[in-house]
Amino acid sequence: MTSINSTWNWLHRGVSEIFPDRPDSHDPDENLQRRIEQSGQPLRVKLGIDPTGTDLHLGHSIAVRKLRAFQDAGHTAVLIIGDFTAQIGDPTGKSEVRRQLTGEQVKENAQTYLDQLRPILDFETPGRLEIRYNSEWLSQLDLSEILKLLATMTVGQMLAKEGFAERYSQENPIYLHEFLYPLMQGYDSVAVKADVELGGTDQKFNIAVGRDLQRHFGLKPQFGLLVPILLGTDGVQKMSKSLGNYVGVWENAVTMYSKLEKTPDSIIQDYVELLTNLSWDQLPDNPRERQKVLALDVVTQYKGQEAALEAQKAALSQGEAGTIPEFSLQNVEFPAKLFYIVSAAGLSKGSSEARRLIQGGGVKLAGEKVSNPNLVFEQAEEMEGKVLQVGKNKFARLMK
Amino acid sequence: MTSINSTWNWLHRGVSEIFPDRPDSHDPDENLQRRIEQSGQPLRVKLGIDPTGTDLHLGHSIAVRKLRAFQDAGHTAVLIIGDFTAQIGDPTGKSEVRRQLTGEQVKENAQTYLDQLRPILDFETPGRLEIRYNSEWLSQLDLSEILKLLATMTVGQMLAKEGFAERYSQENPIYLHEFLYPLMQGYDSVAVKADVELGGTDQKFNIAVGRDLQRHFGLKPQFGLLVPILLGTDGVQKMSKSLGNYVGVWENAVTMYSKLEKTPDSIIQDYVELLTNLSWDQLPDNPRERQKVLALDVVTQYKGQEAALEAQKAALSQGEAGTIPEFSLQNVEFPAKLFYIVSAAGLSKGSSEARRLIQGGGVKLAGEKVSNPNLVFEQAEEMEGKVLQVGKNKFARLMK
Repeated sequence: MTSINSTWNWLHRGVSEIFPDRPDSHDPDENLQRRIEQSGQPLRVKLGIDPTGTDLHLGHSIAVRKLRAFQDAGHTAVLIIGDFTAQIGDPTGKSEVRRQLTGEQVKENAQTYLDQLRPILDFETPGRLEIRYNSEWLSQLDLSEILKLLATMTVGQMLAKEGFAERYSQENPIYLHEFLYPLMQGYDSVAVKADVELGGTDQKFNIAVGRDLQRHFGLKPQFGLLVPILLGTDGVQKMSKSLGNYVGVWENAVTMYSKLEKTPDSIIQDYVELLTNLSWDQLPDNPRERQKVLALDVVTQYKGQEAALEAQKAALSQGEAGTIPEFSLQNVEFPAKLFYIVSAAGLSKGSSEARRLIQGGGVKLAGEKVSNPNLVFEQAEEMEGKVLQVGKNKFARLMK
Repeated sequence: MTSINSTWNWLHRGVSEIFPDRPDSHDPDENLQRRIEQSGQPLRVKLGIDPTGTDLHLGHSIAVRKLRAFQDAGHTAVLIIGDFTAQIGDPTGKSEVRRQLTGEQVKENAQTYLDQLRPILDFETPGRLEIRYNSEWLSQLDLSEILKLLATMTVGQMLAKEGFAERYSQENPIYLHEFLYPLMQGYDSVAVKADVELGGTDQKFNIAVGRDLQRHFGLKPQFGLLVPILLGTDGVQKMSKSLGNYVGVWENAVTMYSKLEKTPDSIIQDYVELLTNLSWDQLPDNPRERQKVLALDVVTQYKGQEAALEAQKAALSQGEAGTIPEFSLQNVEFPAKLFYIVSAAGLSKGSSEARRLIQGGGVKLAGEKVSNPNLVFEQAEEMEGKVLQVGKNKFARLMK
C-alpha cells in the first residue's frame, strides 16, 4: 500500500496491476500517469456490469470505488450495462445463470444495480458519469463486421485464455459463440473510446482484446487497471453470497457494522485499503479499535454517518459483539456439563458460582436462557460457534 | 459404374458418397431414393459457387452435371452464388486468392460463371433452376442470430475438421472468422430449404453442418451428395489450370477435342462416367475409338454437334493428332542434324531421301517448314514434344 508518489496515491491504491506499465517511460501509451498528465481532457474510464439481478456486496464494490477515485480526480466514469448479452442469454440453453432476460427485466435489474452503486459513485457532478447500454452498438453489427472482428484473433490465442485452456484440455465442450464474448467486450471499448478499463484480475485477457481491437480501429489502446479479488469475512475464501462470507450493501447498518467489526486481523489491512480512503498509518494500534474504525467508515459510506454511529451503539449494547473473546473447547473433556463449561471459559469464579448463576437465570447460550447447570453436551460440535453469556457483560464464543 | 437399380442409375452414376445412406431404410430422411419417391414435389438441390472469376474446366463441371441430372429428373436446381463472402474478401488481408471484390465485379464474375454453365444446365424449363445470391440472407443476420449459429457447435467439433486439424497441430494460425464459413454455408441450406446439397468430397463437413443447422431451425435435414475429384489429362493429378492438365470449357472445339482424344486409358472410364451420359458397355472396344467417342460427346455438349464434328475432322487432318506415333530421341546422339533425325524416326527411306525431302520443302517441324537438312540440334530438349511432319501423311512426335 505504499505509494510511489503521494500525488498518485489514489491511482495505485488497492490496484493489482496496471498494464501496460512502464513507470520510466514518457510515452503516454505506456505509462498511465503520463497519459493522465498529458491528456488535455478527462480520461474515459470504463467499467462493464452485467444486469443479471445481482445483490451487490462489498466484493463487487472494489472496482466501482476505483472508478469513483477516477471521478474524484476529474475523469469520466463510463459505466457499460451489458444489456445485449443479457437479452440473448445462453444460446445453448445449458446455463441456468445466463438465462435469457426480457428488455423489461434488464432495465429493472440495471436500475437496481445503479441504485446500489449510488452511494459509491458520483452521480451528480456534470460530466463525471456516462451510463451506456451496449445494445446501442452491438445490435447494429452485421455479419461482415463480425467476420472482421473475429479475423483479428486466432483460435490458438483464444484457447490460451485461462478457462478455455483448461476446458479444452479436459475435453469439456467450448461452444463457438463463447469466443465472441471477449471480442464483444473489447468492441465496447472501441465504441466508448475507453482510455482505461477497470476489472478484476480475471479480466486481463478481455481487456487486452479491447486494446487490440482499439488499435485495429485506429484508436489509442486503453490501459487495463486490475483490482484484486476481495476475501470474505472468513478471511479465507473470495467474498460470495453463496459462501455466506459477504457483507451486502443492501443489508441494514447494524448487520453491516456487526459483520465488519469482526474483520479478521489477517485481512483488515486489505479491507482498509480496498474499502475505505483511510490511511493505515493513522489508524489506532489496537486491533479491536481498528475494526471499529473500519466498520464505521464503510457503513458511513453506504448508510450515512448517523446510521453508522447508531449501528455502532447498537452493536456495543449487544455485548460488543465484535469483541467477544473466544474460548477453545479443545481442552474440555466431553461429555461435559454446562456449569463446568461456564467456569472453564472464565465466566465465573469457579464451578459453584457457575451453578448459582445458571440457576439464577443469568446465563444464556446462543441468546437463549439455560437454567439447568447439569445440562450435558455430548460433543464440542454441539456448542461450536455459539456465544455463552453471563450477566450483561461477560461473553465467550465457544470454538472447537 | 454398375447401377444398383437401373431406374436410379442417374442418381448413383459418378457419385462418391450419398449421406445419410441406408438403402434398406424406408425412412425418407435416411434414404434419398425414398425421399425422391415419397416427396410429392420436386426436391430442392443446392450447389454453391464462388463468383471469384474462375475459368471453368471439366473438373468443375462434375457437380454441375449432377445438378443437371436432378433437373432432368424433374427437380429444382438451386444455384447459390456466394456473393456475400466474395465482397468481404479475406478479412485478415493475408490471402491473395480471397481478395475483396466489389459488387460490380461479383456480378460480372457470376455472369461469366453462369455463361459457362449454360451448356450444362437447363436454364429453360420453368421451375428447374433457381439462382440465389447468399447476401440476400447473410447480410440480414445480426449479432444475436450469429451467436445462436455459433452456439450450435463446439471448438472441438470445428477443430476436428480436416484442414483445421492439421493446421492446429502444426501451430499454423487459424483465424476465428474461418470457423464461421462452414456455418454460413450451412445457413445457406437453411435459407433455401435444400433437400440435397451437392459438393466435392472435401465438402462433407460443411454439408453436415448444414444438416445440423437445418435441424436446429426445425427443417428436414438435407442429404449430402459428394462427387469425386476429376483427374487431369495426365491421369495423375487433380485437374487444375495451374498444372496445365485441364480441358477448359472456354477453349475452342479443336483444342478441347485434341486434348480429350488423348485421354489416357487409365482414366477414360472415369471420364466417360463423369463427363458424359454414355454407357460404357456400348462403347467400342478399340481404345483409340473410345477416345474419339468420348471427345466427340464432350465437345458436342459444350460446342454443339456441328462444331464437334468439325473439330474431329480438323484433328484428323492434323495427322490424327491423337494417333501420332511417338519417336524416342533416347538413342539419338546429340548434337544431331535434322536429316539424321528424319531418317532415324522412320519418316524417310534412309538419310539421302531425308536430305532431298527437306531441301524440297516437304518437311515441317512443329508446323514450320524447315529446309536446311544440316540444321543442328544441340540436345534432345530442343525437340521434345514437337511433331515432325513429312509430306501430308507421315508424322512423328519427338519424345526425350
